[in-house]
Amino acid sequence: MKILLTNDDGVYAQGLGAIKKSLQGLGEVVVVAPDAEQSGVGHSITFSHPLRIRPVYVDDEFFGYGVSGSPADCVKLGVMEIMKCQPRLLVSGINMGSNTGIHVLYSGTVAAAIEGAILGIPSVALSLDVSNFPDLEYAAIISRDIIEILLGHDLPRGTLLNVNFPSVRREEIKGVRFTKQYTYSFEESVDCRKDPGGKTYYWLVGGREITVEEEGTDTEALSHGYISITPLTCDLTNHELLDKIGHWEWGQLEQRFKKTTTFLGKEV
Amino acid sequence: MKILLTNDDGVYAQGLGAIKKSLQGLGEVVVVAPDAEQSGVGHSITFSHPLRIRPVYVDDEFFGYGVSGSPADCVKLGVMEIMKCQPRLLVSGINMGSNTGIHVLYSGTVAAAIEGAILGIPSVALSLDVSNFPDLEYAAIISRDIIEILLGHDLPRGTLLNVNFPSVRREEIKGVRFTKQYTYSFEESVDCRKDPGGKTYYWLVGGREITVEEEGTDTEALSHGYISITPLTCDLTNHELLDKIGHWEWGQLEQRFKKTTTFLGKEV
Repeated sequence: MKILLTNDDGVYAQGLGAIKKSLQGLGEVVVVAPDAEQSGVGHSITFSHPLRIRPVYVDDEFFGYGVSGSPADCVKLGVMEIMKCQPRLLVSGINMGSNTGIHVLYSGTVAAAIEGAILGIPSVALSLDVSNFPDLEYAAIISRDIIEILLGHDLPRGTLLNVNFPSVRREEIKGVRFTKQYTYSFEESVDCRKDPGGKTYYWLVGGREITVEEEGTDTEALSHGYISITPLTCDLTNHELLDKIGHWEWGQLEQRFKKTTTFLGKEV
Repeated sequence: MKILLTNDDGVYAQGLGAIKKSLQGLGEVVVVAPDAEQSGVGHSITFSHPLRIRPVYVDDEFFGYGVSGSPADCVKLGVMEIMKCQPRLLVSGINMGSNTGIHVLYSGTVAAAIEGAILGIPSVALSLDVSNFPDLEYAAIISRDIIEILLGHDLPRGTLLNVNFPSVRREEIKGVRFTKQYTYSFEESVDCRKDPGGKTYYWLVGGREITVEEEGTDTEALSHGYISITPLTCDLTNHELLDKIGHWEWGQLEQRFKKTTTFLGKEV
């Protein structure tokens, strides 16, 4: 069984090493990860300039491949160029920092797993909240448990699991919660500064403070000491609104296409 | 009424100029756009290094602001630092190239509108398929119609409209279709080349060819000459799987948390 392992913290990151060790014996793990940190890159892909792949050695032993691109690039190159086959599993992480709420949209870790899901690979994103007492080793052990359970099931097309571990000591983990993504914005701000030449520059200050309490969400589970497992999909359609939007007043637009035979699927 | 206008092709892009002109008279348009092309950056945000904002002049007249970051950065800085208020509307585009199917995940144009939706701003992403006979001027005219209709409605929280214009002459546009996002992968490949020094590099070749025909999707509408309007959400949760996943065999994991009082919300 072939496993593609990637992340967004880079090929030398501690979290990647931890999960690689934990996956030993489960299958052949092929590491294809960014050669530098790629946090916050979201689902960026590189098609405007070329990419490099280089073998990476740790302690003089072959460790995997470093790619000069984003996590999503790593998945594409990993599958199409390095493995030249569909892996049985894609693992992204373990990210040092949680990826919950709207942060999943900014996360390279999650984007790699979404990319895997798009390609039809059972995919899981793993992230560890590091704000208090993170236990990376334990997160890696539990991740393997979760992955083994996942392998016994078929995920719906385009769907992946987003797993977050709370920042508590292992004996304080309360259990597992299956959650929905928190969708409210977080508190954030802009830090305005002067450079040594007196010119203004700006630093985005990404908040983690939630603005609205919402039960059943990934952020809530994590803050209460639970491991959060959220099934995510690559389908962003708001199907509920799709059912209603046809009833808006599209008449004025209809006028423009009078000479065409159909509008909204009806003869006009 | 204040309107925030951004894009991912950059502040000097033709598509941005076209929609800016078309929005004249609707409200006060504030342009905050990347100072260089940012195609394919997805929902990346910049928090690892600082950002610059500079005023941009066209023909010696103030045009807007250029930001040294991603489209999502532009929205954050636009709202928090430049406008210092919540605009009534966010417009992203017009992108020269369609953003349908899984390309919405890679698109900076769409990411900016998602960012707006997260912040509670009625938001619309506009893209024009340029593969055959694109009519940018007409796309800009129709965009204004669509925006005026949108302004008469409340979008659900975290929801935006993703609008794509087909690449046909204006008299050949067949009408409007309300669609779901196409979620299958596209044909893609990797081009492997040698640089002048003989070293290998790779170029991702992003395909537009669909792999599976699916009715009612954005890609299908566009390829048949319709304008496609897709309501998208920032909530990636697969709610259907969320209802079922608790029934997987989580027993082995449960053992680990025996000493805790709850698992899956039940006493153990």
